[in-house]
Formats: sequence, structure tokens, C-alpha cells
Amino acid sequence: MDSATCLAIAQRDGFEVTALTVDYGQRHRVEIDCARALARARGVRDHRVVRVDLREIGGSALTGSAEVPKDRAGEEIGGGVPITYVPARNTLFLSLALGLAEVVGADAIYIGATAVDYSGYPDCRPEFLRAFEALARVGTARGVAGNPVEIRAPLLALSKADIARLGAGLGVDYGLTSSCYDPSEDGAPCGRCDACQLRRKGFSEAGMVDPVQRRT
Amino acid sequence: MDSATCLAIAQRDGFEVTALTVDYGQRHRVEIDCARALARARGVRDHRVVRVDLREIGGSALTGSAEVPKDRAGEEIGGGVPITYVPARNTLFLSLALGLAEVVGADAIYIGATAVDYSGYPDCRPEFLRAFEALARVGTARGVAGNPVEIRAPLLALSKADIARLGAGLGVDYGLTSSCYDPSEDGAPCGRCDACQLRRKGFSEAGMVDPVQRRT
Repeated sequence: MDSATCLAIAQRDGFEVTALTVDYGQRHRVEIDCARALARARGVRDHRVVRVDLREIGGSALTGSAEVPKDRAGEEIGGGVPITYVPARNTLFLSLALGLAEVVGADAIYIGATAVDYSGYPDCRPEFLRAFEALARVGTARGVAGNPVEIRAPLLALSKADIARLGAGLGVDYGLTSSCYDPSEDGAPCGRCDACQLRRKGFSEAGMVDPVQRRT
Repeated sequence: MDSATCLAIAQRDGFEVTALTVDYGQRHRVEIDCARALARARGVRDHRVVRVDLREIGGSALTGSAEVPKDRAGEEIGGGVPITYVPARNTLFLSLALGLAEVVGADAIYIGATAVDYSGYPDCRPEFLRAFEALARVGTARGVAGNPVEIRAPLLALSKADIARLGAGLGVDYGLTSSCYDPSEDGAPCGRCDACQLRRKGFSEAGMVDPVQRRT
């Protein structure tokens, strides 16, 4: 949902988008198929899927065998770093994006990080994104040449309801997206993990019907 | 050679080392076997080899089909960003190390970056390493909790000759290392790429015999 909206925003901003999906051994593998369908539907001509085996590193319920938490109350979802935190995941995603940006000559990297509904992930905060931008300035050939890549996180200050409304206005087909951390074999959302709960709350607050969760 | 020396320094500093090797589709795959042999020889109990398919991103002679430059003169080796530059490679390596450091509870990350012999790589400079350390402070659960991981690059100010001498003093078996960017099928170094030339120069200046290049 966040990445799909982010893509639509980058296109609205006038960019020809090179899309990057990271296959990091996540248990919610259906999101990779969703990313392919979405990129196609939005006319993205260059979509890369990079495999990184984070299971070798471990440390998260999203890549390991630990149970994804279910039916947590709102205040639990907001507090502390959850077991679904993948250590340094956005640092990794952004480094891959940075390498790709150098190769294709991209001016900006868009990332769908959000800090409003869910503040438990340290690598979704504005200070993290600013620090990464500073890193990109000194750590790449183009940055050293005075042409650094910009890091844009247009969803950072938006709630899930804001995101749903914004995306709907930009024609995002949320029926092609998947947010669930623990979907069934056929890709249906569990409806009970933190991601499902936040998504449901967002669509509900926006007064919209979620084409995905409606089906469950 | 650099990573092997770095490992020995971390052990000298009193650390129990968790070793990380990145299999990123490099054409010099023999270095992965070397890393395994080295880790075993130095008594490393936990060695992870993480696969990342950087060929999907491309942009470097080390992961693509472009020719690795051979027989370049010293001033050419030192000037500009070479075609063997892998975009954002050290950013990627450090983000994987950062995730692993969070998982195993490591206090420091050692990286064998050097800036003396070879200044063409932007992500081997002190300002890059400082920027990454700043990123680690704000982008990880432990950093936010006031216990950030330290980034150490003990070879940064050393020449290849310094490194060879230092490693020899720490008992590094350089016969188990590989530096060549374009080795033959059986792992023998080409002797002509930038990495081979810098290595030869280093051992020569240190008045040492290289157990690897001697064999060619």
C-alpha cells in the first residue's frame, strides 16, 4: 500500500520510475508478485527484483520461524520495536536503491517509509532518512562529483488514512497490493497482524473500502 | 588481504568475531572459498555468507561482462572512479553487517577499507565511514537505545606494504587470501588487474614474498 502510493507520487512528480523490489526471504512473498503486477499496471518499464538472503542473518519474525504477532491492541502496535523489525532493513533497501540510482542515473530515490501510525521502527524516522542522504552525498561517485541523489519519503508525515485517500486520487489500484505479514498460501491476508490492522483502520478512517481485505 | 588482516586485528583487539562474507555475484568467486578457509584457520566460530544478486543492478566490471582493466600504470590506478567500482558496495556491505551486528549483539563492525593506495572508490573514505556511523546511531534499535555499534576501519591510513607487515606480525596466512578481480577458473590471480598490481607492489615494498602471487 505504501510503496504503491509512493510509486504513484513519483509518477505524479514527473519521474520515469525504475522500480526496485527486494526479495529478502520474507514470509509474505506474495508482495513480490503484487509488486510485479503493480509495476506493470502503472506502466513502469524497468522493474528490478534483487534477491538478498536475509535469513542468513535472521533476527526477525518476517524472515524466521518466530510467530508474527496477532490481534495486538493499538497501543501495543505503537510501542517499542516489534519482533517483525528486520534489523537495518531500510538501510539495506536504500543502499540497493542507491547503487541502482547510480547505475541508471536517477535523480531521486522514493521510499514509502511512514512514521505516523507506526513509530516502532527506528529506520522509518526523518532523522534516519536525513542521515542516509548525508551518506549518499559522501559515499557515491555522483555525490562526490556534486550531483548527489535525493532521498524522498513523501508518506513520512501521513497517516494510513491520508495515504489511502492520496493514492485513490492518483488512481492507485489497491486491489493489486498486499500488506499482510503472514498471508495464507494463496496470498489472502490474515487480517490480524499489525500490518493488517493498520491497513483496515486506515481504509476505515478514510471512509474507503479496501478491495483486498473485503475479500477475506 | 585487507579483510584477512582486518580479522586478525579484531581478534588482537580482543573480540570474538562473527565473520560476514557477501556473495554478490562477483566474478572473483574464489574469494568466497578463501574467506571460508581463512575463517576456519583463524578459529572464527560464526561465519555467515549472505547472497545478494547485484548482477540485477549491474554497473560494474566486477559483476558484469565488461572487461576488468589490465596493466594500468600507477597513476591510472590512482585517478578517478574505476570501472571495477560497484555502486554503493560498501554501503550495502555495511548495512548487512549492521543488521548482523544487531542480531548477534556485536559492539563493533570492522571493515578493511583502505584509502591510501587507492583513492578512486568514494565509499572507502573516512567521511563515508563517519557518515555510516552516524546513520547507525539513528537507524537501529540499539542506536536509538543509546548503544550504537561502532564502525572501525583500522586499515584506512595504511599502505598495502603496511598491511602486509602488520598482518604478518599477527600471523595472517596470506596464502589463504585472494585479491585478484579476474582470476582463472582454478583461482589463480591474473597478475595484471589493479588489485594484483597493488598487492604485488605492497608485498615488494614490505620486503615480503607473497605466497599467492609467487605461485603464478
